[in-house]
Amino acid sequence: MDETTFDLAVIGSGPAGQKGAIAAAKMGKRVAVIDKNDMIGGVCLHAGTIPSKTLRLAVLYLTGFQQKSFYGQAYAPMSHVTVDDLMFRVRTVIEREHAQVTDQLQRNGVTLVNGWARFVDAHTLQTDDGLQIRGEHILIACGTRSARSPEIPYDGYRIMLAEDLGRGDRKEIPRSMIVVGAGVIGLEYASMLSALGVRVTIIERRPTMLDFVDREIIEALSYHMRRRDAIFRLGETVTGVSVQENGLVRADLESGKRVTGDALLYTVGRQSNADQLAIENIGIETDARGRIAVNENFQTAQPHIYAVGDCIGFPALASTSMEQGRLASTHMFDGPALRPAPFFPYGIYTIPEISMVGRTEQALTAERVPYEVGKAHYEDVSKAQMVGDRAGMLKLIFDPDSLKLLSVHAVGEEATEIIHIGHAVIALGGTIEYFRDNVFNYPTFAEAYKVAAYDGFNKIAEMR
Amino acid sequence: MDETTFDLAVIGSGPAGQKGAIAAAKMGKRVAVIDKNDMIGGVCLHAGTIPSKTLRLAVLYLTGFQQKSFYGQAYAPMSHVTVDDLMFRVRTVIEREHAQVTDQLQRNGVTLVNGWARFVDAHTLQTDDGLQIRGEHILIACGTRSARSPEIPYDGYRIMLAEDLGRGDRKEIPRSMIVVGAGVIGLEYASMLSALGVRVTIIERRPTMLDFVDREIIEALSYHMRRRDAIFRLGETVTGVSVQENGLVRADLESGKRVTGDALLYTVGRQSNADQLAIENIGIETDARGRIAVNENFQTAQPHIYAVGDCIGFPALASTSMEQGRLASTHMFDGPALRPAPFFPYGIYTIPEISMVGRTEQALTAERVPYEVGKAHYEDVSKAQMVGDRAGMLKLIFDPDSLKLLSVHAVGEEATEIIHIGHAVIALGGTIEYFRDNVFNYPTFAEAYKVAAYDGFNKIAEMR
Repeated sequence: MDETTFDLAVIGSGPAGQKGAIAAAKMGKRVAVIDKNDMIGGVCLHAGTIPSKTLRLAVLYLTGFQQKSFYGQAYAPMSHVTVDDLMFRVRTVIEREHAQVTDQLQRNGVTLVNGWARFVDAHTLQTDDGLQIRGEHILIACGTRSARSPEIPYDGYRIMLAEDLGRGDRKEIPRSMIVVGAGVIGLEYASMLSALGVRVTIIERRPTMLDFVDREIIEALSYHMRRRDAIFRLGETVTGVSVQENGLVRADLESGKRVTGDALLYTVGRQSNADQLAIENIGIETDARGRIAVNENFQTAQPHIYAVGDCIGFPALASTSMEQGRLASTHMFDGPALRPAPFFPYGIYTIPEISMVGRTEQALTAERVPYEVGKAHYEDVSKAQMVGDRAGMLKLIFDPDSLKLLSVHAVGEEATEIIHIGHAVIALGGTIEYFRDNVFNYPTFAEAYKVAAYDGFNKIAEMR
Repeated sequence: MDETTFDLAVIGSGPAGQKGAIAAAKMGKRVAVIDKNDMIGGVCLHAGTIPSKTLRLAVLYLTGFQQKSFYGQAYAPMSHVTVDDLMFRVRTVIEREHAQVTDQLQRNGVTLVNGWARFVDAHTLQTDDGLQIRGEHILIACGTRSARSPEIPYDGYRIMLAEDLGRGDRKEIPRSMIVVGAGVIGLEYASMLSALGVRVTIIERRPTMLDFVDREIIEALSYHMRRRDAIFRLGETVTGVSVQENGLVRADLESGKRVTGDALLYTVGRQSNADQLAIENIGIETDARGRIAVNENFQTAQPHIYAVGDCIGFPALASTSMEQGRLASTHMFDGPALRPAPFFPYGIYTIPEISMVGRTEQALTAERVPYEVGKAHYEDVSKAQMVGDRAGMLKLIFDPDSLKLLSVHAVGEEATEIIHIGHAVIALGGTIEYFRDNVFNYPTFAEAYKVAAYDGFNKIAEMR
């Protein structure tokens, strides 16, 4: 093999590409990852998960969010939080992670190729510098970008996409903001902004939000965001957006309403970057959002070309994308037969944070699966009192006959961490007796499992 | 039954007494809990777990402990932290929890009797007000207090027991402090004090600390405490303590060394409060520390009298004490046969925090159980970068043939929460393949399980 020929050429260095590349390298394969040097880590690192989750922690800290429960609503460790106060921490984390990801790829002997890749033929990629890379196999992990709407005159400053946040020369946090789209990204940013004291109006075309999440959890989120003065305009369609003479952004709604704010963030949908790969040259088709169709092994119409991560659509989480990358590489090089997990947890980094594993009450009802619920309010566990979280809740859904745990839904501090306890119990076939019969560290949020299990047993006892 | 006759009379309202009382009440029994009104919740709430863990959170917050990783070692949100700044939060949490515990007992129909209880006969207790309470069964959950040493001239101000912390009229945090005893309590306070910038000297008679904890984890704790200028004097015995003319406390060691500090905290051992129950009246014996012997059902020499919690000795954790209370009540009233869990997690709230479930490498080696180790450093997971924890570590110990998970040892942020994930996998018979094959939310500390599992697989691959 010459220096430009590889067992595997990976397009994109986000979570899916990284883990796919490393898995192949660990099997002794020659692997190249093609991405812009300054974009190593992908959108996840530079404009997605990492900055938004870091920003969230900075918001929680700099606003003294949980401390208000002790020191009063007016308490804040910093009297005036600027964009730079927030972004300082984000830049630090991005730098550290960028170095970490680059180092990890290099330590595993993965060749990093600087540039954007395009297909020349089914085995050949060419970078924008003209370098040709040949791959026995190719893994497309090109990611997505914010979708745009023709009605919205983006300027990257007043009228923004998620990629524009924290860029540019804005020094002050806007006092009011319009968020169009109540998906995960829209709600994560909207809840952060409202925690910062920004008056947020969320506009969503559908009458409900995040339909895959348990309704009770969404109601808890809405409740807490409304207490921070967020306004939800659900079932409303934006017909036009403009900047008024007074500098405010105005959104006109089909219902005749007008909404104004210092800035507008548009978070409706994602567009795959596959449209920039000249993928049509090699006979792989994409849908309207640019998503690539794959089979259960992540193979495209060309069996030696795999696609993973956000560019194949649902669920488009960093966590599942990493797993897809690993599974694809393992499949292509006949590694140990790995089955994709039958279900996986969701983490939604709103304020308060949300996590779930397994089906919702609504889905189980629709599927005619009988269930019972055991619930714990965080205020019933001591750690929540100590930390100052009086909003959290954990809900166990279980089979009332076998007591098998079916799903777990959580909102509140550390929800994304403790969900994995329930995940393990479900995956290993455990019942809610597990939580009754085992000891949990005191004080922890994890104790909520025990409280919820007891609540579940009480419900069943009442029915017998 | 008259108003002073109960199915169950419980002595003490700490975690063991509370949960025992509520479990019996839920089975329809008439239950009384005897404790001083202002001590409802027990030592745990008033001078133990709750104040110390709340204090810990206040220390972490007010010193900007994790933020230093972003803003530099000199960073602190408060330039001068006083005792009152710390104790304000502790008082708030104690008040909330006191109300919570009282409410929960009352909601379950448990009668609260104000006072200290003493045995009159094997079924009769008398409070210091002279009220007699008769119990068909009796549950002793009287807790412990700090043990004292005749060599130490306690004054509750300069020379203190754990109960004295935060009391009295001390306004300023001492600049230097001697902690005698490197058990869980001593190390928790010592690590908090060192995080506050107090120069701490820890004196321990044995040559090692916390022998039930994995050595690597203890070394990590020692390392991080030493970086905060803590001094460990292990294998040293205190022969005398005095207050010098300059107001400093001096401890003389058998080795001839002298140690001075603004104050001294003595945390060697606990003394059971059973010596205050006139327990000798009813033929129940205690050991030198006042501990009551019980069988596997928590029955004392008098089968209708049970004892649970700290007063029976090891493990003396709030978490296990609660479970003992429930198990005892269930046994006495022929409730569903519950087996005590074969193992349980430990949480040690040092800075950084420590948690473990299952045996240590040292114990497995001594028992000739072959094992392999998979390890993750927190710096390999993104959340640790975001939060600023560069110290954490998670270690999986597993059977190299069956891959069954044997134990988990963790140090770092949220260690006490995420340990429960490994706990569930061990308890339900899972292997380290569980962590490889399942998706973990990104970014979480729980991801460290996946990193550690991959490390474990690499180790095995190298051996084959």
